Amino acid sequence: LAKLANDEMAELVLKYPDRFAAAVAALPMIDMEATLKEVDRSINELKFRGVQINTPINDKPLDSPEFLPLYEKMSQYNLPIWIHPVREANFSDYRTEKRSKYMIFHVFGWPYETAAAMTRLVFSGVLEKYPNLKIITHHCGSMIPYLEQRIIGAYDHAEVLRGAKYKQGLTKSPIEYFKMFYNDTAIYGSTPGLTCAYAFCGADHLLFATDFPYDSQFGERYIRQTIQSIEQMNINDKEKKMIFEDNARKLLRLPI
Amino acid sequence: LAKLANDEMAELVLKYPDRFAAAVAALPMIDMEATLKEVDRSINELKFRGVQINTPINDKPLDSPEFLPLYEKMSQYNLPIWIHPVREANFSDYRTEKRSKYMIFHVFGWPYETAAAMTRLVFSGVLEKYPNLKIITHHCGSMIPYLEQRIIGAYDHAEVLRGAKYKQGLTKSPIEYFKMFYNDTAIYGSTPGLTCAYAFCGADHLLFATDFPYDSQFGERYIRQTIQSIEQMNINDKEKKMIFEDNARKLLRLPI
Repeated sequence: LAKLANDEMAELVLKYPDRFAAAVAALPMIDMEATLKEVDRSINELKFRGVQINTPINDKPLDSPEFLPLYEKMSQYNLPIWIHPVREANFSDYRTEKRSKYMIFHVFGWPYETAAAMTRLVFSGVLEKYPNLKIITHHCGSMIPYLEQRIIGAYDHAEVLRGAKYKQGLTKSPIEYFKMFYNDTAIYGSTPGLTCAYAFCGADHLLFATDFPYDSQFGERYIRQTIQSIEQMNINDKEKKMIFEDNARKLLRLPI
Repeated sequence: LAKLANDEMAELVLKYPDRFAAAVAALPMIDMEATLKEVDRSINELKFRGVQINTPINDKPLDSPEFLPLYEKMSQYNLPIWIHPVREANFSDYRTEKRSKYMIFHVFGWPYETAAAMTRLVFSGVLEKYPNLKIITHHCGSMIPYLEQRIIGAYDHAEVLRGAKYKQGLTKSPIEYFKMFYNDTAIYGSTPGLTCAYAFCGADHLLFATDFPYDSQFGERYIRQTIQSIEQMNINDKEKKMIFEDNARKLLRLPI
């Protein structure tokens, strides 16, 4: 199925070169051997410029040892991994209920999954082990930029007050690893949110994305709102261009 | 136990009037009759200026029908309810694991609980039913201000694409109810985060708070950082004063 999907993507890129700069691969993450082969095939034969995985993968966190070979390979290729969060309505928010109501699992659960995945990759040492790894988060780093000081403070607090060893094995402070992630602009048109993310990770770690075609106007709304929200940021044109295209060209190593 | 705690709080306020403007009540939420009596006693006899509850309460969401009498009473008193999130490490982030690792349940789970509680109060119609209700969230509205457009977009999308009826029974758009919450400044010193919250809910819905004594310097760090982060906001002095004290005076109806 992954091969089939990737072949069709390759065909689209080939057919519409004015529309698509490149594609990224879907992977059969239930089988790491098959995954590594499909990464090689996608990048070398189909000319893909990265891969996309979910979080969690079959209910497992991204720092599970079985996934490390993928990080090693993508680190060697020096091409990015997109992480897309997943959670369904049967992941209840309350122990007295069977299902998540009012789409809470989706609206906030997905960003939570992203925050959890980032945290796992930081403290398990995956980013320490593969400092070259380029990971792109969805929804602009979810709640990480907004809660920057909570993250910094909580692990300091745990260390000072109860001798927690979360930082063991890390050579930098935890927040520095959180800043290694690249974050897309898919918060759908919030200049204050993007400005908060910019303050956290800088223009060079923000990548234009709109979540097309997911919106009430089949993609047009979020594209319009996202472009506008970046244009309205109080940063210079060079930085806006970085967000809109230069960072992607660089990260995907596209021909200029 | 609630009475005991409240009596001791009242004693402290009486003893140190230069330090404490007022206290808010702990409540025995397992028993609504006892809760309502303790609200009356706290406000009328102990001169308390609000109450604090947790989310969830005994694993139940805040919109459970059994909690409505509290909202009705606090609405009548026109005094605020503080909501503090709770979640423990045994609330695992992954179905393949028994416990939450690296304090994810706390660092991000608590803000998630706040976002979930706010969403439940919005769509269940509690804020529609009690438009006068003043609710104060912790951690500056958690991820709500940052994800404002995701909230707006997701429910529009659900309505347009699959005819979801989440907005039924609400007279305003959902995001307007989210803006009814008052949010404390306890994100521990992030001017970009506070600025994002300010853009979302305005200066009149932000209240100075530091989460004392919870930090690695037993309270001094977050007090210092929070004050500094508000002072550095690009807003006028009148609005800063609102955040630092005027909003609290008004909301708690303290003698000027």
